[in-house]
Amino acid sequence: MTTTLITGGTVVSATGRGEADVLIDGETIVAVLAPGSTLLGTDLAASVDTVIDATGKYVIPGGIDAHTHMELPFGGTNASDTFETGTRAAAWGGTTSIIDFAVQRYGERVQDGLAAWHEKAAGNCAIDYGFHQIIGGVDDDSLSAMRGLLDEGISSFKLFMAYPGVFYSDDAQVLKAMQVSAETGLLTMMHAENGPAIDVLAAQLAEAGKKAPYYHGIARAWQMEEEATHRAIMLANLTGAPLYTVHVSAKQAVDQIAWARDQGWNVFGETCPQYLYLSLEEQLGAFSEEWGQFEGAKWVCSTPLRSKGDGHQHHMWQALRTNDIQMVSTDHCPFCMKGQKELGKDDFRSIPNGIGSVEHRMDLMYQGVVTGKITLERWVELTSTTPARMFGLYGRKGVIQPGADGDVVVYDPNGHTTISAATHHMNMDHSAWEGYEIDGHVDTVISRGKVVVDGGVYLGAKGDGRFLRRGLSQYLI
Amino acid sequence: MTTTLITGGTVVSATGRGEADVLIDGETIVAVLAPGSTLLGTDLAASVDTVIDATGKYVIPGGIDAHTHMELPFGGTNASDTFETGTRAAAWGGTTSIIDFAVQRYGERVQDGLAAWHEKAAGNCAIDYGFHQIIGGVDDDSLSAMRGLLDEGISSFKLFMAYPGVFYSDDAQVLKAMQVSAETGLLTMMHAENGPAIDVLAAQLAEAGKKAPYYHGIARAWQMEEEATHRAIMLANLTGAPLYTVHVSAKQAVDQIAWARDQGWNVFGETCPQYLYLSLEEQLGAFSEEWGQFEGAKWVCSTPLRSKGDGHQHHMWQALRTNDIQMVSTDHCPFCMKGQKELGKDDFRSIPNGIGSVEHRMDLMYQGVVTGKITLERWVELTSTTPARMFGLYGRKGVIQPGADGDVVVYDPNGHTTISAATHHMNMDHSAWEGYEIDGHVDTVISRGKVVVDGGVYLGAKGDGRFLRRGLSQYLI
Amino acid sequence: MTTTLITGGTVVSATGRGEADVLIDGETIVAVLAPGSTLLGTDLAASVDTVIDATGKYVIPGGIDAHTHMELPFGGTNASDTFETGTRAAAWGGTTSIIDFAVQRYGERVQDGLAAWHEKAAGNCAIDYGFHQIIGGVDDDSLSAMRGLLDEGISSFKLFMAYPGVFYSDDAQVLKAMQVSAETGLLTMMHAENGPAIDVLAAQLAEAGKKAPYYHGIARAWQMEEEATHRAIMLANLTGAPLYTVHVSAKQAVDQIAWARDQGWNVFGETCPQYLYLSLEEQLGAFSEEWGQFEGAKWVCSTPLRSKGDGHQHHMWQALRTNDIQMVSTDHCPFCMKGQKELGKDDFRSIPNGIGSVEHRMDLMYQGVVTGKITLERWVELTSTTPARMFGLYGRKGVIQPGADGDVVVYDPNGHTTISAATHHMNMDHSAWEGYEIDGHVDTVISRGKVVVDGGVYLGAKGDGRFLRRGLSQYLI
Amino acid sequence: MTTTLITGGTVVSATGRGEADVLIDGETIVAVLAPGSTLLGTDLAASVDTVIDATGKYVIPGGIDAHTHMELPFGGTNASDTFETGTRAAAWGGTTSIIDFAVQRYGERVQDGLAAWHEKAAGNCAIDYGFHQIIGGVDDDSLSAMRGLLDEGISSFKLFMAYPGVFYSDDAQVLKAMQVSAETGLLTMMHAENGPAIDVLAAQLAEAGKKAPYYHGIARAWQMEEEATHRAIMLANLTGAPLYTVHVSAKQAVDQIAWARDQGWNVFGETCPQYLYLSLEEQLGAFSEEWGQFEGAKWVCSTPLRSKGDGHQHHMWQALRTNDIQMVSTDHCPFCMKGQKELGKDDFRSIPNGIGSVEHRMDLMYQGVVTGKITLERWVELTSTTPARMFGLYGRKGVIQPGADGDVVVYDPNGHTTISAATHHMNMDHSAWEGYEIDGHVDTVISRGKVVVDGGVYLGAKGDGRFLRRGLSQYLI
Repeated sequence: MTTTLITGGTVVSATGRGEADVLIDGETIVAVLAPGSTLLGTDLAASVDTVIDATGKYVIPGGIDAHTHMELPFGGTNASDTFETGTRAAAWGGTTSIIDFAVQRYGERVQDGLAAWHEKAAGNCAIDYGFHQIIGGVDDDSLSAMRGLLDEGISSFKLFMAYPGVFYSDDAQVLKAMQVSAETGLLTMMHAENGPAIDVLAAQLAEAGKKAPYYHGIARAWQMEEEATHRAIMLANLTGAPLYTVHVSAKQAVDQIAWARDQGWNVFGETCPQYLYLSLEEQLGAFSEEWGQFEGAKWVCSTPLRSKGDGHQHHMWQALRTNDIQMVSTDHCPFCMKGQKELGKDDFRSIPNGIGSVEHRMDLMYQGVVTGKITLERWVELTSTTPARMFGLYGRKGVIQPGADGDVVVYDPNGHTTISAATHHMNMDHSAWEGYEIDGHVDTVISRGKVVVDGGVYLGAKGDGRFLRRGLSQYLI
Repeated sequence: MTTTLITGGTVVSATGRGEADVLIDGETIVAVLAPGSTLLGTDLAASVDTVIDATGKYVIPGGIDAHTHMELPFGGTNASDTFETGTRAAAWGGTTSIIDFAVQRYGERVQDGLAAWHEKAAGNCAIDYGFHQIIGGVDDDSLSAMRGLLDEGISSFKLFMAYPGVFYSDDAQVLKAMQVSAETGLLTMMHAENGPAIDVLAAQLAEAGKKAPYYHGIARAWQMEEEATHRAIMLANLTGAPLYTVHVSAKQAVDQIAWARDQGWNVFGETCPQYLYLSLEEQLGAFSEEWGQFEGAKWVCSTPLRSKGDGHQHHMWQALRTNDIQMVSTDHCPFCMKGQKELGKDDFRSIPNGIGSVEHRMDLMYQGVVTGKITLERWVELTSTTPARMFGLYGRKGVIQPGADGDVVVYDPNGHTTISAATHHMNMDHSAWEGYEIDGHVDTVISRGKVVVDGGVYLGAKGDGRFLRRGLSQYLI
Repeated sequence: MTTTLITGGTVVSATGRGEADVLIDGETIVAVLAPGSTLLGTDLAASVDTVIDATGKYVIPGGIDAHTHMELPFGGTNASDTFETGTRAAAWGGTTSIIDFAVQRYGERVQDGLAAWHEKAAGNCAIDYGFHQIIGGVDDDSLSAMRGLLDEGISSFKLFMAYPGVFYSDDAQVLKAMQVSAETGLLTMMHAENGPAIDVLAAQLAEAGKKAPYYHGIARAWQMEEEATHRAIMLANLTGAPLYTVHVSAKQAVDQIAWARDQGWNVFGETCPQYLYLSLEEQLGAFSEEWGQFEGAKWVCSTPLRSKGDGHQHHMWQALRTNDIQMVSTDHCPFCMKGQKELGKDDFRSIPNGIGSVEHRMDLMYQGVVTGKITLERWVELTSTTPARMFGLYGRKGVIQPGADGDVVVYDPNGHTTISAATHHMNMDHSAWEGYEIDGHVDTVISRGKVVVDGGVYLGAKGDGRFLRRGLSQYLI
Repeated sequence: MTTTLITGGTVVSATGRGEADVLIDGETIVAVLAPGSTLLGTDLAASVDTVIDATGKYVIPGGIDAHTHMELPFGGTNASDTFETGTRAAAWGGTTSIIDFAVQRYGERVQDGLAAWHEKAAGNCAIDYGFHQIIGGVDDDSLSAMRGLLDEGISSFKLFMAYPGVFYSDDAQVLKAMQVSAETGLLTMMHAENGPAIDVLAAQLAEAGKKAPYYHGIARAWQMEEEATHRAIMLANLTGAPLYTVHVSAKQAVDQIAWARDQGWNVFGETCPQYLYLSLEEQLGAFSEEWGQFEGAKWVCSTPLRSKGDGHQHHMWQALRTNDIQMVSTDHCPFCMKGQKELGKDDFRSIPNGIGSVEHRMDLMYQGVVTGKITLERWVELTSTTPARMFGLYGRKGVIQPGADGDVVVYDPNGHTTISAATHHMNMDHSAWEGYEIDGHVDTVISRGKVVVDGGVYLGAKGDGRFLRRGLSQYLI
């Protein structure tokens, strides 16, 4: 077994920071030590296989992206990153674990869906991966199968109040699934948008000739996110299920979550970088020589980008500070413009929904530290510690402490990163973040004790990543 | 320098727990290690001076009680614990740091008040101690002196909206002091009760012959705590001062704090064990052979105990879970019944206000873990980690990590503690907590590397404790 | 044309009271005069056909019950009051106008439903009647028909978020209907309960053997009323439709309405006497020799009775005072125990939902004046003036002023009324209000100038009542 | 006694409108009749002394301005309108009653203050007038005197949380006065601004050389109005006193009142035209050749004008619609620029606070009807009916019904009014409303049966107005 010592850095946790060395033995962190690498006379630096000098840099637990969709079949195509390309890109960006979504649809067996996703991922991943289970068809069979998920290392499932005819569950179905959630402790994840109402609005827009990408955001009005969020909260309250709302974008939905939490209910929310930086106004103004106004399709995602003028971004950053929103995932669901996004060239309803960000989450959130929107500690908490606690991985992931997996990132606050499709590692022909400048840089990425990225070189291999069996949430109020 | 290894325990932090050994070298933690005490071949247990076996026990950062009043002159007498007796009692209870209050009154110099308190404490304390500065007389001179406090290691000051003629500041004075708070970053601590209104109510009760201890709580109506809390919040918002409300007891005051935080304002609140366990109803029913109904004087404190029937306790525990209230201090301000509390035998207005709990805070809050009201992690966060962050001590205190002071408590979840005046170490002739049973026990207390309590024996000495120079708050939103 | 002078009474309006005589000429009020019946020398009392002495009594505009269901087909039977028996009972109780519900169901034409209800009512009513239109099947045809309703004198329509398979509209349907509401100004009335979720709960209770009437209230949890109310509000906000929530019973639903109104949205709510006086606890304890515990079926209605312990009643009275709830209707939907309610003897789900109160609303609400819960003026406003304004009848109805229909009630505050199935005039074999004592009495009822009830004698005739063509709401914010 | 018949108009009340004639006999309305002026054969028009043709016009109850300060000594000068000039101007503007403020100051007897104001007003007024009592010095003597106020026809008193050293009451004083309010039913009126804090801010601005009129508004920050409003509400809640907050200008203060009302508390608020139309931005930009930037002094009033950019105006109009704010008064307190406002030429703190609007309130609020902000009925309610109910005048004032005083205004919606100092009747050398255009016109004003304004001619006389003895509020929740 190889030993690694990270010396001279500032170890940052969710609650504070301190100068310390980190010793990894094999796949596991075995000690956090006063800097200087001697301990009761032992010269550790001289004794280990590898010494990584982190002087002047931050040493943080590897990022955990709890919301990705590699290879997801959606809208007649598949998300363009495979587990191989997507997890490798994640590693480049300082993320050492993802939690992806296995899919069950109406008429399918949960077990089969899970098995299919295991097959897609096994042996292909650059970093560790876990699964949430999408329950796209709530019926007696799937409800029964849900009770077996924890034994499979799956401690959360996702329902959709959007997408009628695809993943949609009606309220009777949501209620039944939440009863299982309350009974088993599985965390209910919710795509909270009123799909039936949104589909009416979208159809009316299309009928009125309003088919450009921008109208995607108009159809998915904030009222329908706020409403579904409230509905999910009340169904959760009725059943006793813990609730986690994914990709929150509307400030009014944030307010619903804050209200529920003020009453002591186990309600949580995640947002994504796109809702912190990008806006409907930019989408409206998007234009390129290649794609004309269809350029805006690059930012078609659901929930949609919101209006900057209405203050959603400002409110969301604040919610991250006050813990009304607990964590930041990407909802990474990449589609190329060529052959994929362009399916909706004539009608926004046919544009595959999704933005690819798995590589950039750590950087984009660090920029929030640079601009004073969040603290350094909160950065670590939002991107690693809370995701680990929320989804039953804490102890192994999300923290630098003895016994934890050797997932460590050395981040250079004096480095610089420019985001571009020309240089990113995701399998996408464009970047939603083209030209974004980050005042920091992911220098070294260690995954279970193995240095996988260092000095701009990828040192990992397909299959490095292993399946993460997760326990119940460690974050309940 | 002596070395100590704590082995086999479960180290608990604010975010999680894990099996680990803790190595202390001299006064400082130098390593947190995978259990087993070998490191790259070194048999640590064999190499250190002392090994403490924490198998089956919790290893936590030493408690920080951020609100004590040793030797406080109040109501014609002095709080009955000196810095010597009070800090020794604290050590017995697993608290290794206190922050007490130096006092400046109208017409006095801040520097003189601070110097006087240094004199009281220096060389007498069993554990480390810091000071907040009470500004009991806001005038040009004290406002100017406040700008020098940070250089003295004082990063917080306290104002009173109660006690006209004693510590009271009117709104003009509060405003001016808060402007200094915003300018310097000093945290404004506030006793938020509308003193002028309360004094009218108290006088009217007394005039009506309602002079028993119970009427203390009637006079100090919740509306007057809620009101003052809101007023403090708005003055803080106007000036940009960070605000920390002490000894919050009314649920409506909690709601005010939650409201301010939902808007992203730097508003914080502390509660105390008495508001989580004791109630006005019990005070009303109190009776002893020795004291008759004056027995209720034991629980005369300000803010007062609140009605259990109105749900304050339930709401307060919930606020601790949701972080609407961030920490738990004691407001330790002990007075004996004999010669002190009995000053108010004929009129509740003359009863010295205060309850002594510095010895029992860690136990009483642990009981909240036992009863499922808070998690183990939240226990550590409320009693140690957040106090350290809130008051600029984090890194040195509040966490078990390399570089931190060797302040560690070994807590036995299988132990048992019965609280009684017959056995406690505070200088009080009664206990507000007589007969309380705790399903846990403080086994070993280490203060800056020195074992001061172990196996029911006090091993420390007067003067072990040193003054803590504090930096600005590390907890701002 | 006959002339009537009501002399010596206290005329009460929504804003105040005053001594005045009221002169009715034919069907219409032609003057309100200073008491004494002379005007510029004319001795009015001597000149009119009839003088009614109202000395010591209140003279109020006739009651308007905006929510009745005469002859409604529901649950395999019909509401037991016909338009003839129901409106006669209404007249006995001081109500001189009702607004009933014409029904359209899925697959039926709106025009046919309306025509069918006209046929039921025409020539049979004792007092004037209007119709709301139930849209039980929202489709292109019914949406189109809704645009013609105003020409038919129908200015409001009702949707159901409850009763899947019967009257239920899903959110897509609600959205479309509300768009018509916004476009035409028709008021959207909503039965706001989450039917799909409630049906799951009801089925689970039945499956668990919990089939007694009481479980009706358990299945229809307050969360599902609160949730649907919020959903209706947000859909209304999205579309711009004015919204009126019927039979509000949960305090949390009240809070949703209050919240919407605080934001200036056109959201209104009605409650019913049963939610002000009756409770789930009483239903649980109900027992009779004849029916045993099935006695509780008398109070099976939807929304259900709520728990008194949870404070719904108290909150509802308060909401009536603060105008968070604007009016009181009965939701009169009577079913006999024999042959009707007993359909659900073995399963609460088969009990026809409904309570009969059309005769007692004015009395029951007056008792709220007696007990100090509302003012005399608010009584008139809640039962007559606001219903008239809300539903486009004001001027003709809801007020005593020249030009208004001669709908006047002389109410004796020194009279007394005991409610009993033995004496009531509704076609029911029981009374939900058996034994209720009212400290007041409906003495004289005048409908469009004709005295129909006086001195305990019914003087009216079938067919006295005429159809009321209504205009748009006059109550919008 | 003279008789007057107003024919052909649309009588507007707080709840609706209708075509009706109004007959006044002597000082009193004796009948409201169906239009056409015949009644049981009597040709009324031929029988009366005067017929006023109101065809095409609105007939409304005379305006009641419940907040004026004629001849008020303030800031070393007196408000420039005497009771004679001020009430005459009011009559010109359709206001037929005012409630002015008698003043008691520290060390003075309440009885003397009241007597002094009686002397100022008696025999000088053009219209009826009542008094509120300012209690500028709460002590045992004044508290005792307050108990006699109702016998003097005074049912409300006013306290100031602003103006330390002038009218200011501290919280102990407010509490004691509110206890008398709860005991007697007298309505507590409150100037809710935190005076001590504001005076600090004002002094700091002045010291920093910021002395222009605009800084008046900066010093009186919205936080200090919101705070004082909340404080007043909580003191009222504690004591049980009904509370009426005067001249509300900050939207956050409105929210406090709405919150109190949502809980069913007797809390009310008044706003003034200046807060609905004028803004801090305009004051900042004010400039004239004569006064330069001191031009802004014309709009120096307290509470101050608020920022339009922050949405206060928009929120205030909404609050008028939703009844979160119940009525509109003027706070008429006129000062000329010459010799009065110019006292503060070098320091905004010396500018007499006040705006003169008593003549324009009915017009300015009617413009809100024209622009769709409020309904015609709400106009009457806000300016006449609610003031009458709130202050114990209803029945005699505030409504057109038999028995009421003959206070009637004929308002022409096809008329036009331009406001200008050149044409107004107030004793001011400028107008805060210079150039405002109103799409309506006060045609005829009748005060207790006497036509005092008609066709642009003033027909009244000094001394027409009589003192109004008022009863307790008729508006309590």
